[in-house]
Amino acid sequence: MKPAVVLFSGGLDSTTCLVLAKEQGFTPHPLAVRYGQRHEHELVAARRVAEHLGLTLRTLTIDLRAIGGSALTADIDVPKDGPLGEAAWIPVTYVPARNTVFLSLALGYAEVLGAADIFVGVNAVDYSGYPDCRPAFVEAFEKLANVATAAAVTGKARMTIHAPLISWTKAEIIRQGTRLSAPYGLSHSCYDPDAQGRACGHCDSCRIRHQGFVDAGVPDPTAYVPSR
Amino acid sequence: MKPAVVLFSGGLDSTTCLVLAKEQGFTPHPLAVRYGQRHEHELVAARRVAEHLGLTLRTLTIDLRAIGGSALTADIDVPKDGPLGEAAWIPVTYVPARNTVFLSLALGYAEVLGAADIFVGVNAVDYSGYPDCRPAFVEAFEKLANVATAAAVTGKARMTIHAPLISWTKAEIIRQGTRLSAPYGLSHSCYDPDAQGRACGHCDSCRIRHQGFVDAGVPDPTAYVPSR
Repeated sequence: MKPAVVLFSGGLDSTTCLVLAKEQGFTPHPLAVRYGQRHEHELVAARRVAEHLGLTLRTLTIDLRAIGGSALTADIDVPKDGPLGEAAWIPVTYVPARNTVFLSLALGYAEVLGAADIFVGVNAVDYSGYPDCRPAFVEAFEKLANVATAAAVTGKARMTIHAPLISWTKAEIIRQGTRLSAPYGLSHSCYDPDAQGRACGHCDSCRIRHQGFVDAGVPDPTAYVPSR
Repeated sequence: MKPAVVLFSGGLDSTTCLVLAKEQGFTPHPLAVRYGQRHEHELVAARRVAEHLGLTLRTLTIDLRAIGGSALTADIDVPKDGPLGEAAWIPVTYVPARNTVFLSLALGYAEVLGAADIFVGVNAVDYSGYPDCRPAFVEAFEKLANVATAAAVTGKARMTIHAPLISWTKAEIIRQGTRLSAPYGLSHSCYDPDAQGRACGHCDSCRIRHQGFVDAGVPDPTAYVPSR
């Protein structure tokens, strides 16, 4: 079994990525990043999902709040019940260069492990507002990885960035994950959960996730705050 | 004056980069990364140099020790008085994906500042063992930056990665910096300083730096430990 680093947030997309990497014959090494999120529920969910799948989660800590610039890491309100997608081309929840930073960290971890494969759960369909969720970004990062690392430069390995979800709708992601018994009930997607980690049901992330379950015809196992 | 992010370690190369960015008409925003170095002397020097130049240093903290793999961040001995360059193509002091990670962080900071320019003091001549110090790496990162960021994708800015030192010898770097009054006496390059932050004089970094001053015909202002 070849090792693969899987960027893992504990959310629905990266949980799907983890079970897909396993299905493709890799030994997944999930890597979570504590980047100054407002809450720890994402990381609690990441540990929970990894444990359920018999994997050990590695967590890197980086304080992106030191550069600010996003509702997820700075003191800006998370938008609720606003229009999705078209209205604001770059959502306020965009974290500057987040996927570039995360993939760089995954690349470092891959070098240490001697892995030539990195999985990332980016998706260009439901969340096209993020520039670093598009195929052109993934391709550019793969090219960079192949000139940036010792293994690639010495000819030992060709780095591959796998983004299996990139062109799937949320419903397709959920159908694929459900086929592979992805533990979605343990995952967490909400930007603004309550103290117990229950999903708000109103932020963009919650609404896209819930609609995905509806469209996939799969019961939504998410624990929502009672007011929903 | 256009803002530019300058990756800044407090060492000789990035100090030169800082004065070059100023000379080229940019307002430099020095960004240091606390990445799990064995000692804080680099960051002390970075603050000292930035202050001397009237600039405010921004410091991002990331714990690369969580993924290990280098003498600079893990429990591996720093090599002393060994052969330079050719002998070990990838030196043990190589930090996995370090410049990829650092440039990603600079990219995030540039987005927040609205800057389209990033300076990095990588050099391919004296330290050719590091894959992420070569022109091909810088070009690949620039391409990535132009598909990864909101400003580039919306057409607001074209990101440029400046690596002015990349093809200079250490002596040329020192001559250019000396012309612009770079405060080299305040900078720090040693991998293994004593408790007062004085340079050991024997690690690869010390020896390359000292030889640079000799070759440039500039007095070496470095404070070495007395045993030298």
